[in-house]
Amino acid sequence: MKTRIISGLVMAPLLVILIFRGYVLYAGCIIISLMGVYEFFRGFRELEIKPSYPIAAVSVICLYAMGIFMNLGIIDAHPWESLWIFATVVACLLYLFKIEKRKLDDAMVTLTGILYVGFFCFHMGMLGMNEEFGILVWMAVITAFGTDICAYFAGVALGRHKLCPVISPKKTWEGAVGGVLGAVILSGVFGFFFMREYLIHCMIIGLLGSIVSMFGDLTASIFKRKMGIKDYGNLIPGHGGILDRFDSVLFTSPLVYYYVELVLMQC
Amino acid sequence: MKTRIISGLVMAPLLVILIFRGYVLYAGCIIISLMGVYEFFRGFRELEIKPSYPIAAVSVICLYAMGIFMNLGIIDAHPWESLWIFATVVACLLYLFKIEKRKLDDAMVTLTGILYVGFFCFHMGMLGMNEEFGILVWMAVITAFGTDICAYFAGVALGRHKLCPVISPKKTWEGAVGGVLGAVILSGVFGFFFMREYLIHCMIIGLLGSIVSMFGDLTASIFKRKMGIKDYGNLIPGHGGILDRFDSVLFTSPLVYYYVELVLMQC
Repeated sequence: MKTRIISGLVMAPLLVILIFRGYVLYAGCIIISLMGVYEFFRGFRELEIKPSYPIAAVSVICLYAMGIFMNLGIIDAHPWESLWIFATVVACLLYLFKIEKRKLDDAMVTLTGILYVGFFCFHMGMLGMNEEFGILVWMAVITAFGTDICAYFAGVALGRHKLCPVISPKKTWEGAVGGVLGAVILSGVFGFFFMREYLIHCMIIGLLGSIVSMFGDLTASIFKRKMGIKDYGNLIPGHGGILDRFDSVLFTSPLVYYYVELVLMQC
Repeated sequence: MKTRIISGLVMAPLLVILIFRGYVLYAGCIIISLMGVYEFFRGFRELEIKPSYPIAAVSVICLYAMGIFMNLGIIDAHPWESLWIFATVVACLLYLFKIEKRKLDDAMVTLTGILYVGFFCFHMGMLGMNEEFGILVWMAVITAFGTDICAYFAGVALGRHKLCPVISPKKTWEGAVGGVLGAVILSGVFGFFFMREYLIHCMIIGLLGSIVSMFGDLTASIFKRKMGIKDYGNLIPGHGGILDRFDSVLFTSPLVYYYVELVLMQC
């Protein structure tokens, strides 16, 4: 519990950039993406898999550069987004051409890292650029951290039935339900104060975001278990790396982004 | 040589669907994608990697369904294409949740197969739907097979210096140059007869397509070498599977597609 609260406080300055949004948040997302991919790749060292950080870094930087051009209306999302995917896959495959030195895993981890960390995080940056709904970046964070904290307290107080003992032994169904309820309530409070006309949408995002945030958390646990590590890094001493903090946000950001694009912007 | 010519003849009926283009070609691409992903996954059996064909098949079918809706103007490419990528990555990661039964490779091969085979091939289908430039699907095929055949004859006649002996021992630099020249000439002939006002663009596509087609060929060789197999399948008896035939077209199709979208359609 102490860990969880201290981590929460350590996160506070990072959350300040959410207030500025726009390019400040965008720059933050670039840094988180580049550091996150680095931590993700480092986790594979023990498995003797050597993904290409240069390919990943160039791919991620191109993605964010494209995002800026799209935002300025210089290029269209289509076909540039799909061209980016194509070019990224090709770059990862070309990495295999030194066939004696490279394993298939080296290329596949490179691709997975770019998409799972870089591309997922990119949604947060793009969401923050949205003039009308950019404030909803808070929802990606509130659902992720709200679920985590509420699930913790609900689990401690009421936890009886294990959720998935093999992946994450401490999680309980009671905690999960508490996490979802907590996230919906927090989202409702946020909606009430900041987006009253979209209050019900905020609570729907809270519900969906809370569920995907748990999947994000468990996905990171699976990777770490398979890698044989406890934390991705040691950036915040005693509280893990950047990916340990943002594992759920990686999943909630795209959720909020697509909810805005496909539901709210069509209203 | 006999193999190469017979394979060429066996391909002839397949090429007939290129004449119809539109939904006929689109349906052909769906079949090639689904069969190609199946062959790709089967190649990993020897490595004891078990990707999820159901996830891949659903993802590929969703992609092609989206393509039809985009083509009919019911949905926009953005954000649906990037939502598709997000959902596909999440589905592959969820596949790991049975953590005792699954390896990271199972998920990463699933993702790689969907993108490398399904997504790359999808470009051919979408290109064939283009009203003005759909005829250029021929260029994806001419550059791929033209390079292959011309490189073969040039290599037999003049080949002295090995291109990349570790990946594909029979290929020579002389063959590669002959393949590029042959593809440019064939593309020029095609342009002269069918798209005279875009003749120079056809030859540029011939040049670029020929180079990426060799990368496509070598990429497939790398996969097969790492898998420890000679051919992906035995669909055309004695002449390999569908992926053995289309390994280069997987790379030339996106090239032609993006050339059309970013160059020709802006003219």
